[in-house]
Amino acid sequence: MLTNTAALVAVDWGTTCFRLWVLDQGGAVIANLRGAEGMSVLSPDQFAPVLEAKLDQLGVPDGVPAVICGMAGAAQGWVEAAYLPVPCAVTDLGAHAVPAPGAQRPAHILPGLSQRAPDDVMRGEETQLLGLVQSSGGFDGTVCMPGTHTKWVTLKGGVVAGFSTAMTGEMFALLTRQSVLRHATGGGGWDTAAFSDAVADALEAPVSVPEALFSIRASSLLGALDAPRARARLSGFLIGAEIAAMRRYCLSGPVTLIGDDALAGLYRAALDIAGFDAVLTDADALTLTGLRTANAQIPEYA
Amino acid sequence: MLTNTAALVAVDWGTTCFRLWVLDQGGAVIANLRGAEGMSVLSPDQFAPVLEAKLDQLGVPDGVPAVICGMAGAAQGWVEAAYLPVPCAVTDLGAHAVPAPGAQRPAHILPGLSQRAPDDVMRGEETQLLGLVQSSGGFDGTVCMPGTHTKWVTLKGGVVAGFSTAMTGEMFALLTRQSVLRHATGGGGWDTAAFSDAVADALEAPVSVPEALFSIRASSLLGALDAPRARARLSGFLIGAEIAAMRRYCLSGPVTLIGDDALAGLYRAALDIAGFDAVLTDADALTLTGLRTANAQIPEYA
Repeated sequence: MLTNTAALVAVDWGTTCFRLWVLDQGGAVIANLRGAEGMSVLSPDQFAPVLEAKLDQLGVPDGVPAVICGMAGAAQGWVEAAYLPVPCAVTDLGAHAVPAPGAQRPAHILPGLSQRAPDDVMRGEETQLLGLVQSSGGFDGTVCMPGTHTKWVTLKGGVVAGFSTAMTGEMFALLTRQSVLRHATGGGGWDTAAFSDAVADALEAPVSVPEALFSIRASSLLGALDAPRARARLSGFLIGAEIAAMRRYCLSGPVTLIGDDALAGLYRAALDIAGFDAVLTDADALTLTGLRTANAQIPEYA
Repeated sequence: MLTNTAALVAVDWGTTCFRLWVLDQGGAVIANLRGAEGMSVLSPDQFAPVLEAKLDQLGVPDGVPAVICGMAGAAQGWVEAAYLPVPCAVTDLGAHAVPAPGAQRPAHILPGLSQRAPDDVMRGEETQLLGLVQSSGGFDGTVCMPGTHTKWVTLKGGVVAGFSTAMTGEMFALLTRQSVLRHATGGGGWDTAAFSDAVADALEAPVSVPEALFSIRASSLLGALDAPRARARLSGFLIGAEIAAMRRYCLSGPVTLIGDDALAGLYRAALDIAGFDAVLTDADALTLTGLRTANAQIPEYA
């Protein structure tokens, strides 16, 4: 039982799964788990029972507040937390948190951010950006957040000035699992040199990437490419093309990477090939710092 | 019964389906059908029974020869018809046809073409190219063959000098059916102006296409884009990026388009926006002419 120590339940509720941490008063993690019930498989009235069942398992008492970021706040989620338009200070998230009904505790969902012309949206990453701003005592520069939908963000003095999204992660998953390239890229393994070469090719001639993709299948059929190299080459073409598209974000100093370690490592390697410095961070720590910081700024607690 | 008139069975056997025509001595179509048994669902010994069952239905007697192009000749097909390396005269196809076992008739499968550095392959399109060369009395220029995997081909005096493949059709299908963009592009409808604008955007800045794709989802979420425009915009971005990649093919005069009429029409419109002329053809007629011409060149009939 966590009766005596649990002070906050922090949740990152995504489309396909959620992650939950129980924090003590000082912010230390005293329990955590991952759940398979993502937003896409839940109706609005199922979020609270799913959350309560998990907290019951962990022995978290009723009344311990919960703060939630991510797709739980989408229109089709638990309850909609409307996007805040950029430019937007990340310290505004708590002030716009929306109470989520049905739980055995106060529960709030943080809003995402939206941008018009060019149109873009994020849900979840804004909380990591708050964590970054909070941990670094203010932040100026570019943040790249590799994932299914990689976000590139310009932060100025804690304000999100603008951002862009590339579907590179989803594209890689679709091409390796569903497309004709799956025959070439299937199985495990990875070839670092093939990745680097493909990144360099894509950076040099991003216009040619649509032509390069099928060559992976052809090279494999002609016996000239094994699966680890095929997989790495596809990843390199896609990430190289993304960096070429986002080059303007890289011109203002080192790029701060927030994401899964392995994927962020690939982005760092690709940025290095493009001649840009990058800094890795602890993504989970930033998520937790962001959730705690936003929670403390929710008006009913302030 | 077609006993008295059937002279040749012509088959285009693809990955997901096949098409079959029964021709008389003069090449006129006296029967045709489409079968759902594509190469991907057949083991090698199932091709002959599937073909014979269809010909039984149509009343085509045993002994009428069959000529087949496409994926039936892949390594995992009926019997492998090894790729001919380019440069390759399309009039060589018949000489390299491979007998297919098990049918109640002479049956031959035509080879595909392969290319090294850059690696590429085709199976089926080479027969349409033979049809084009035969119908036009020789052909010089660029052929674009829109489809799941669009081929761009340089023909010089009936010789395939080189070719490239773009997975644009497969990418569009994956993105509209499986990706997050399916929420934006679902349903019917089409907006021609949105297509044209997106083609122009992609031609002007192909490097930005990876960034543009997710904006379709964002614009839809923000209420700024209906499904017909979203669908057309996605298609325009992808086809525009393909034409930018293949621009060198377009510099030597009008592009001859061989493909499904609706899709070839989109390519013609996109090529026009890029400042290039294009000519539509009758793809089925070219397939039939190619199959008949190749069949007449098979050594055992010559």
